[in-house]
Amino acid sequence: MFESAEVGRSVDKKEYEKRVEALRTRILKAQHALADTHLRLVVLVGGVEGGGKTEVARRFLDWMDPRGLQVEAYGDPSDEENERPEYWRYWRTLPAAGHGAILVGSWYTRPIVARVFKQIGSGGFDQALDRAMAFEAMLVREKTVLVKLWLHLSKKEQKRRFKELESDRDTAWRVTKQDWEFSKKYDRFRGTCERALSKTSVAEAPWTVIEATDRRYRDLAAGEAVAAAIETALKKAAATGPKPAPDRAKPPRVSILSRLDLGMRLEGDHGKKFEKQQTRVALLSRRLRKEGRSLICAFEGVDAAGKGGSIRRLLAAIDVRNARVMAVAAPTDEERAHPYLWRFWRNLPRLGHATIYDRTWYGRVLVERVEGFCAKEDWTRAYAEIAAFEEELTESGVIVCKFWLQISPEEQLRRFKDRVKTPFKQYKITEDDWRNRKKWDAYQAAAVDMIEKTSTPDAPWTMIEAEDKRWARYQVMKAVADRLEEELG
Amino acid sequence: MFESAEVGRSVDKKEYEKRVEALRTRILKAQHALADTHLRLVVLVGGVEGGGKTEVARRFLDWMDPRGLQVEAYGDPSDEENERPEYWRYWRTLPAAGHGAILVGSWYTRPIVARVFKQIGSGGFDQALDRAMAFEAMLVREKTVLVKLWLHLSKKEQKRRFKELESDRDTAWRVTKQDWEFSKKYDRFRGTCERALSKTSVAEAPWTVIEATDRRYRDLAAGEAVAAAIETALKKAAATGPKPAPDRAKPPRVSILSRLDLGMRLEGDHGKKFEKQQTRVALLSRRLRKEGRSLICAFEGVDAAGKGGSIRRLLAAIDVRNARVMAVAAPTDEERAHPYLWRFWRNLPRLGHATIYDRTWYGRVLVERVEGFCAKEDWTRAYAEIAAFEEELTESGVIVCKFWLQISPEEQLRRFKDRVKTPFKQYKITEDDWRNRKKWDAYQAAAVDMIEKTSTPDAPWTMIEAEDKRWARYQVMKAVADRLEEELG
Repeated sequence: MFESAEVGRSVDKKEYEKRVEALRTRILKAQHALADTHLRLVVLVGGVEGGGKTEVARRFLDWMDPRGLQVEAYGDPSDEENERPEYWRYWRTLPAAGHGAILVGSWYTRPIVARVFKQIGSGGFDQALDRAMAFEAMLVREKTVLVKLWLHLSKKEQKRRFKELESDRDTAWRVTKQDWEFSKKYDRFRGTCERALSKTSVAEAPWTVIEATDRRYRDLAAGEAVAAAIETALKKAAATGPKPAPDRAKPPRVSILSRLDLGMRLEGDHGKKFEKQQTRVALLSRRLRKEGRSLICAFEGVDAAGKGGSIRRLLAAIDVRNARVMAVAAPTDEERAHPYLWRFWRNLPRLGHATIYDRTWYGRVLVERVEGFCAKEDWTRAYAEIAAFEEELTESGVIVCKFWLQISPEEQLRRFKDRVKTPFKQYKITEDDWRNRKKWDAYQAAAVDMIEKTSTPDAPWTMIEAEDKRWARYQVMKAVADRLEEELG
Repeated sequence: MFESAEVGRSVDKKEYEKRVEALRTRILKAQHALADTHLRLVVLVGGVEGGGKTEVARRFLDWMDPRGLQVEAYGDPSDEENERPEYWRYWRTLPAAGHGAILVGSWYTRPIVARVFKQIGSGGFDQALDRAMAFEAMLVREKTVLVKLWLHLSKKEQKRRFKELESDRDTAWRVTKQDWEFSKKYDRFRGTCERALSKTSVAEAPWTVIEATDRRYRDLAAGEAVAAAIETALKKAAATGPKPAPDRAKPPRVSILSRLDLGMRLEGDHGKKFEKQQTRVALLSRRLRKEGRSLICAFEGVDAAGKGGSIRRLLAAIDVRNARVMAVAAPTDEERAHPYLWRFWRNLPRLGHATIYDRTWYGRVLVERVEGFCAKEDWTRAYAEIAAFEEELTESGVIVCKFWLQISPEEQLRRFKDRVKTPFKQYKITEDDWRNRKKWDAYQAAAVDMIEKTSTPDAPWTMIEAEDKRWARYQVMKAVADRLEEELG
């Protein structure tokens, strides 16, 4: 893979100046065209130490409009970053639509270094690469012009470059002890990077390997790759596909939902039974911080299924100083300018904290599917994207509880009517609720698909028979307690 | 101040239930009315240890709609918080318009504890209270319903409460060693809090001291205070004032701007002179992180004054991995839902980093004043608010450089025409630019006021004669280098 980046490519000064002039006009035009679209630009600048990643980033800031273009370099994670999944720092620095980011270092850095120094095996390495690929595939489908540049130097050239930098008082600081340490492992780095690049150079997000020996050639090649990528994406974006259509599937006659026994009632001393579970949650949730864990409870269900009541009671058990309720309503314009999962990433709880979601990221495969707010290919790929998201959560120590609250259409009607006539409940009922009710079957079909496709051992769905409110609240509380007990030991 | 909160107020169970029912309907109605306005709700729950701050917060979550209502508790600052001014954590948790926050602990906690344990003197304490008051005054004027509750217990009652909690296995954990330690200093706390409350209980943000001995009385008093505050604010908000008018003041005939010599030119070997300054900036800015400092460069000036060119050259000197350019365009809807300074707080650089602003928070006293985007009382109070903001920055170690780039109207016209005819500059010129040009005098008048009112020793304005681009860029670079040298020694 790297042989063709050791052939001695170079550009003389005169040709460079001519080409730079043309490139600047071209890349600036492309950048400004992109600013008016829903596309964002993400440029990964990777490569060997001494290859000039930062110099290339600086060149982009110089050639392009630095407004709306940020350079991100990822050093040691901060404590807030350490308290979230690994990719949180990439999500939080993801540019909005119309903007761009030049990443010096990226999600490849940690796995490559860890593999070279044998902190992970080849299985762990491939797993990390799979995650990178899934993330990139999501970015590309969520309107990102993703350009992956790799700056290559031969072993000999790297050594020469370090010595050159060290010999000048003004640049000597740029060669660190770590650089020399890494350079001793050049061959191992080369093999590891080759593996990473060949595995992750896919059609939708290919790597451009650039021979970085000659700075002029390197900068031109980098600039031209970015200009070309934006131009291609703009052309593609201009050719708009058909308008997404609502999905009005019928649920199967017999399904995981239809088999629920909505006749379940909480018998006996309700209060005492419920309180017992609530106390369990109270005591267990207090241990989250100490155990280095956090908690996410996600609630889905048709309107009036009882999500709010269950959430209110959960809140009464958890230490409110560490808990937050996130009600998922229409996204803000900043949220709209990012991939659909961004609004959930940005609100992830810190260690010891809990976030309770009143509706969730599953909106993509429920309301967005049924109402045709996104294309079929968007909601079908979402199952895997969501599974990957939840895997990142659970891997990093988040305990994920997901609830589907099931009621019958008759019970929903009773509750709607009750809301209409009770003054302090009226705010809960809107025109939308009545409209959605007419699409009952489509929502049930979407829910069945969702539960079947996204129930995993670490992030299982708990289906709650919610016809009887007491039973539902008891079951939710018990499920959270059981889950906490299982996870915290 | 606290005597009247030791008189033995209580509410019996029957009365409590009756009043709670009425209160819930009332507070829920108020909350939902607020959700449709530009108002936000911030409730401070302060008071002595054992008074039940968290219990009260929990009650609010129970009585109100927990969606859009968050509880914030401020523990030890994270490292990201430690790398910014003290109030950053309060700004980042400030709710958007229509939402609410219940703060358990607040900006009063640190100064009170520090004063009780004699880490600060009475001067430092008063300074901290002044800052709190200025912050609150800004919040209130920026559409915040601010309710400040103080839960009081007598010395005897506090002791009784701790013992009661400790005697029950389920609540013993709530009494910490620190609680007992604080309780030993009850009298000193009482005096310090009394001083804090009496100084900061102003008409626009008064304290409500609540006798917290009887839990029913306490919760009702807290709830009723919040309901009443929202209702009052809603009434006030309904009575809208006159539409803000554009301010078309004339600049004084002789002013700090008119006295600038626009004939200044960079003579001799431009390149060499400029490079010398650029190298100084490069070497000095590398020391920021080590010295625990960060850098903000703020650029203002009429259109085409050369802000972009100066910024581009600054970027070329600073390590781009730690630098960011923030171009201040129209705010996003999230930014619009917060006080005008919020968008700048949210983007403050970490230690060692630099943020360069292409237009700034001074928009309030420039474009917003001239175009009538805000009322006269809003931009007149902004001078002090901005000075307070910059004081917080410089106190926390941020080096603040502010530049006003001055050109003549004739030079602006020449540059506009040049932009129109140069293909890769055309994006820089818009209809707005031509429109603003017609208000030249008004913008000059606003700029003169701004520079006079907000040039402080720690955050001075540097006025740049920008008619000659080379001179301007040289002066900017030199000023940044001088400033860094002065601050970093």
